[in-house]
Amino acid sequence: MKPARDRKVEILAVGSEMLTPHFQDTNSLYLTKRLNDLGLDVHFKTIVGDHWDDLSLAFKQALDRADLVIATGGLGPTKDDRTREVLASVLEQELVFRDDLLKTIEKRFARRRMKMPEVNKKQAYVIEGSVVLENKKGTAPGLWLEADSNIVLLLPGPPYEMEHMFENYVWPRMQAFKKKYVHRRVIKTAGLTESRIETLLMNLYPKIPDVQLTTLARPGQIAIHLKSTSDKSLLQATQKVEQASKLVCDILKEGVFSTEGEELEEVVGKYLQKRRQTLALAESCTGGFLGHRITNVPGSSSYFLQGVLAYSNQAKTDLLDVSSETIEKFGAVSPQVAKAMAAGIRKRAKATFGLSITGIAGPDGGTTEKPVGLVYTALGHNQDVLVKKNLFLGDRNAIKFQASQKALDMLRRHLLGKSKP
Amino acid sequence: MKPARDRKVEILAVGSEMLTPHFQDTNSLYLTKRLNDLGLDVHFKTIVGDHWDDLSLAFKQALDRADLVIATGGLGPTKDDRTREVLASVLEQELVFRDDLLKTIEKRFARRRMKMPEVNKKQAYVIEGSVVLENKKGTAPGLWLEADSNIVLLLPGPPYEMEHMFENYVWPRMQAFKKKYVHRRVIKTAGLTESRIETLLMNLYPKIPDVQLTTLARPGQIAIHLKSTSDKSLLQATQKVEQASKLVCDILKEGVFSTEGEELEEVVGKYLQKRRQTLALAESCTGGFLGHRITNVPGSSSYFLQGVLAYSNQAKTDLLDVSSETIEKFGAVSPQVAKAMAAGIRKRAKATFGLSITGIAGPDGGTTEKPVGLVYTALGHNQDVLVKKNLFLGDRNAIKFQASQKALDMLRRHLLGKSKP
Repeated sequence: MKPARDRKVEILAVGSEMLTPHFQDTNSLYLTKRLNDLGLDVHFKTIVGDHWDDLSLAFKQALDRADLVIATGGLGPTKDDRTREVLASVLEQELVFRDDLLKTIEKRFARRRMKMPEVNKKQAYVIEGSVVLENKKGTAPGLWLEADSNIVLLLPGPPYEMEHMFENYVWPRMQAFKKKYVHRRVIKTAGLTESRIETLLMNLYPKIPDVQLTTLARPGQIAIHLKSTSDKSLLQATQKVEQASKLVCDILKEGVFSTEGEELEEVVGKYLQKRRQTLALAESCTGGFLGHRITNVPGSSSYFLQGVLAYSNQAKTDLLDVSSETIEKFGAVSPQVAKAMAAGIRKRAKATFGLSITGIAGPDGGTTEKPVGLVYTALGHNQDVLVKKNLFLGDRNAIKFQASQKALDMLRRHLLGKSKP
Repeated sequence: MKPARDRKVEILAVGSEMLTPHFQDTNSLYLTKRLNDLGLDVHFKTIVGDHWDDLSLAFKQALDRADLVIATGGLGPTKDDRTREVLASVLEQELVFRDDLLKTIEKRFARRRMKMPEVNKKQAYVIEGSVVLENKKGTAPGLWLEADSNIVLLLPGPPYEMEHMFENYVWPRMQAFKKKYVHRRVIKTAGLTESRIETLLMNLYPKIPDVQLTTLARPGQIAIHLKSTSDKSLLQATQKVEQASKLVCDILKEGVFSTEGEELEEVVGKYLQKRRQTLALAESCTGGFLGHRITNVPGSSSYFLQGVLAYSNQAKTDLLDVSSETIEKFGAVSPQVAKAMAAGIRKRAKATFGLSITGIAGPDGGTTEKPVGLVYTALGHNQDVLVKKNLFLGDRNAIKFQASQKALDMLRRHLLGKSKP
């Protein structure tokens, strides 16, 4: 067996449905993350259907170019599920029947008061010399095989079954291959552009040579992924990342909204919950998307009181007390109307804070003066109403996201200011 | 060159970022669809990074097992972009400099009043004997190569560039490989379970042996994909699919909401727009998600008047005239409150229709009597208020989707009933 340090990994996703335009392999993203946690890199990913010859060829080539091959899928009971059989044939090994496995599968059906269908019997066959990995979430057992210089894992295709099996029966065994200790942290920011962050962090890079820094940007949110590895100890990897994390946070200051993986709506929710303060919304062009995000957080009912989707001008007047004169004079997409909406909903709902959004989400409705992407966001609190003018790029969904993000970030920054000594 | 009928296709996605947990190849889904349109099936998909040896090996194995190899990515100007160089080395061909390509790239920069960076010069090198595919959306030209029995395409990685190049310069050339004429149609349904559809369609299968029928299900929506191929003519493939489509629609009746690919909110929007009718919403547990979906449709402002996110009981009383006695007696999640919400918003907004949703989206807040997933949806119109009791499975997001889907479907079915003679 090759030393652990040289292990090349290939992930093999088996299933003809993943060779159609409709389905994509997602198991490999999860597996890659966990392999990276051990300091192992993935070198190849192959997606192949359940044709015998193709699958056989894919296994042969994977065994040839990788030391650790992890295959997912094709362990089910149907005749199209043949990963086990093909691998046995490639390795010139026998499939052996295991009575204990059959009993386990039968029991699984019995617990649901069902008789095991005859077809499931094939799941009790394993490749000679392999270690069986228990499947607590389904009927297909996994296999762990060591063949010549290779290690091959067969895991079930359904993500729920695969992840449970991996965490409980693969992860502990994989510790022996640990190449490095790995530590990561994700720093999420709002209100800063990618180029601004790039400029601000420029001088930092030479100071953290041992930390890998990856920036993942989407309009309205930029996440900085920090990762470090150590041959010696987890402590060393952790120290390097945490030191870099502190430096990044010091530079980006209040641009950072999370270092713990939370979404912006969760962070705002935590602040509000802690202070027992409440929130009400007045949305126009986002049409409910901000409310949707806020109510995605379990427990949001303790601070979110109500929202109004004031799509028509009449609704802005009826539900938010925006005067029709203001709308007529400045237009529905104006700082004046945004402010009146935030103040109106705050007062009507008797909430600590009122957030409002009015703008043009496109694709139609823009003019030279008020183009698609022009959005006003406003925050009303007990002393004032703040308003921001924004010009967002992208399609309707991208504009909705950025608008909701901006409104949430205005509230977060306000709450942050208040929380300072 | 092998005859067209035997072509095996492999898609090779090149880029180290796609071997991390953060990025996924999506180009292959688009390419697969277009290849399928020609009657060509994809046999392998490989994802590989930009290491020379790995990429070289991936090309060798792809050329060995496929007749048509389509690689995306790695054509950029940086030193990590080496798809061109690796393929040239694998084929033992020379890279030749093309002055006309350099001029095109320089012009592209000039149009944006920029000087071409020196690094971009490498994009003017092409593999000897290849056909250059113009890139109108970026600087990296694509290549079309015929080598021995293989055809190899190099396309840029950014989807926008790749798709434009494919449609304009690859698609016309690929017509020569057309194996079959293909026609498809997608039938979308709501309000029917997968097993119900399975049962209803059981007797249909023998009647349409030449049509491939694939069911894609998500809770709340089941899509039936029909596809047929013909060696002779497009008309033949079309006739087979359209005949099957008619049979499916006749069986599933009003369960079908679209045969043209629209979302449910679009279908409902079209009905409303056509009749110049209006809609108002009262959402509780969906928290704005229904409004978000309705306002995702461009032009929705012509029929969507307003929505209310009545998260708190107070809001239900203040904004929707739900009496506090009703809430106290039956609870906020009850048919009575759902009906009062729908009637309340309809009256307040002076809308033709009022839709309401109240329920328990979880993960907390459920009881034995009112479990997580219990959702009441109601539709108010000028004669009555209809209410449905639903028990949805899944996480918070799945419940929100199913609830919004059910509310929209109640409205669709009502509108459909009215439109009958």
